[in-house]
Amino acid sequence: MHIIVDGFGGDEPQEITKGVVDSLCADKDIKVTLTGDKAILQSFLTKIGATATALVGNGRLTLLHAPDVISNNDAPAIAIKNKKESSLVKAIDLLNSSSEYVGLISAGSTGAVLAGGVFKVGRLDGVRRPTLISAMPTSQGDKIVLLSDTGANMDCTPDFLIQFAHIASIYSMAAFKTQNPKIALLNVGPEEKKGNELIQKTHKLLLEEKALNFVGNMEARDALSGDFDVILTDGFGGNVLLKGIEGTAKMIFSELKGVFKHNIFTKFGTLFLLKRLKKLLRRMDYHKMGGAPFLGINKLVIKAHGSSKSTSIEACIKQIKTMHSENLIQKIAERISTLQDTEKL
Amino acid sequence: MHIIVDGFGGDEPQEITKGVVDSLCADKDIKVTLTGDKAILQSFLTKIGATATALVGNGRLTLLHAPDVISNNDAPAIAIKNKKESSLVKAIDLLNSSSEYVGLISAGSTGAVLAGGVFKVGRLDGVRRPTLISAMPTSQGDKIVLLSDTGANMDCTPDFLIQFAHIASIYSMAAFKTQNPKIALLNVGPEEKKGNELIQKTHKLLLEEKALNFVGNMEARDALSGDFDVILTDGFGGNVLLKGIEGTAKMIFSELKGVFKHNIFTKFGTLFLLKRLKKLLRRMDYHKMGGAPFLGINKLVIKAHGSSKSTSIEACIKQIKTMHSENLIQKIAERISTLQDTEKL
Repeated sequence: MHIIVDGFGGDEPQEITKGVVDSLCADKDIKVTLTGDKAILQSFLTKIGATATALVGNGRLTLLHAPDVISNNDAPAIAIKNKKESSLVKAIDLLNSSSEYVGLISAGSTGAVLAGGVFKVGRLDGVRRPTLISAMPTSQGDKIVLLSDTGANMDCTPDFLIQFAHIASIYSMAAFKTQNPKIALLNVGPEEKKGNELIQKTHKLLLEEKALNFVGNMEARDALSGDFDVILTDGFGGNVLLKGIEGTAKMIFSELKGVFKHNIFTKFGTLFLLKRLKKLLRRMDYHKMGGAPFLGINKLVIKAHGSSKSTSIEACIKQIKTMHSENLIQKIAERISTLQDTEKL
Repeated sequence: MHIIVDGFGGDEPQEITKGVVDSLCADKDIKVTLTGDKAILQSFLTKIGATATALVGNGRLTLLHAPDVISNNDAPAIAIKNKKESSLVKAIDLLNSSSEYVGLISAGSTGAVLAGGVFKVGRLDGVRRPTLISAMPTSQGDKIVLLSDTGANMDCTPDFLIQFAHIASIYSMAAFKTQNPKIALLNVGPEEKKGNELIQKTHKLLLEEKALNFVGNMEARDALSGDFDVILTDGFGGNVLLKGIEGTAKMIFSELKGVFKHNIFTKFGTLFLLKRLKKLLRRMDYHKMGGAPFLGINKLVIKAHGSSKSTSIEACIKQIKTMHSENLIQKIAERISTLQDTEKL
């Protein structure tokens, strides 16, 4: 199984390289091609040690030279077209070149990854808009909840959202082994007639989708309850929800830190709490959650967090492996073709 | 200063009554009319004690009999029209009857309060849509941030949002003494060209509004940073952000509770932390923050949280007092008339 990693997307190429090496050491079934400035990538490998450099020698790790980088300041579609020597475009071109390559991971500019996915990898037949899907922790142990869309599609029509629901439902079953995933529509209240025009129309259409387990509206305050498998929303609402949750968690943990550090007594208390708190923080840590797959295109593409550490990259590689083993792309293509047959859309 | 309180909006009429009594005892300058089932309200007063019943005797507290209640299950506009004997409609009719009554507080159905505000109290001249404004705590001490709109207006046009910005800016100055309030537009990224059509168009228009201190886009993750005075959004996005923050805080605190209770060592640790943590929780407590004013109509109307405790009602009464002393309605009317003069809208 050959996976491509954009070595210079994201804030920390060295961490990305380390994540790739750790994955290769832990899993003998995979190969990786890492794109980016070859000399720098090689220096990272040397720093990591002999095990790392040996991976190149035995052909499990390939370094593909790409001297250019696409940054968050580049206009995504233009950069994808013009920056042919960038680590991301080289990675996408390689992905397209052969069925040997099963998927791509990039922690780079979200816009550029999405533009590359749409314009270069291409949409599956019948897909109106591919969707970026994020996973969030819930208060029910290890259970996660998926959020579709989380920022790829700003202005949506009801039929886009219906397709997101099908795609996310299939992803939930394939990657998280959920059965009959519960799909809820993000709204301002539980009542059917609540919400804006888009959500009201989508609600009506969802009730007719027999292949979906639509459980009705949900409110943002219940996003982390663990009562749903998929939260359905347009990319604007999904982005607001995801980042709102992230910001609140960050604020509270930083306030708690202040509480703990306040004086010698609370410091003393902290000793006992630290171990348990760390467990909680680990559960909330998005680095362990992998990345956001961009689904509805012809290949597996994962957008990793911009500040991905080695552990995030490892999680993303596992994620690609699972999605590939489960024939995710094929399953999505089949479901979408069913929708076309029934002329729903 | 005569304030009207809907005694049977919200989950806990007894708490509402207690909040009114506490306010009247603490502040000799105000009078209150409380609407609802008179016998029940009287029984609450008797339970509270002689100080409470004396308030009726000396004319500072008036009980206005209203045997009916509007619930969250009632269709708002229909209920406002037909439930003439409800505690909310009686309260609104009294508010409209004389300039003696400066404002109204209801913890009842949001939809009904808004419908009452629009259809019965009426919009100020030139106001396209009144806006419901919530206040949220920030990580900068006692500083709060306003969110406009938080659920009154689901489908917005750019000119609605421009008016919300002016109204929220004036409210921020009048009620929170901010100078030149910083207005930020809720978006998916800081760049000018990010976002959906509504937000992109609004962004352009905001740049031309000389009377506003528009500081650009902000992302949901920075909502509680304290870097802005007003977050501008449509009612759908605002509702998602507010409830997303609420739900996350609730989840984390409940997880922390689990951490603290886990065993004897963490329990021991908790003793030292409890006092400090309580301080933090108090800061995050929306009961102390008052309610959400519905601004852009002819009178002061505050929507209090459905599960308001006596302290929330007290905070709302103080809030009405401040808004009235600051001539808020007049200031909003003046600003809106300026906008019309310049033919911006």
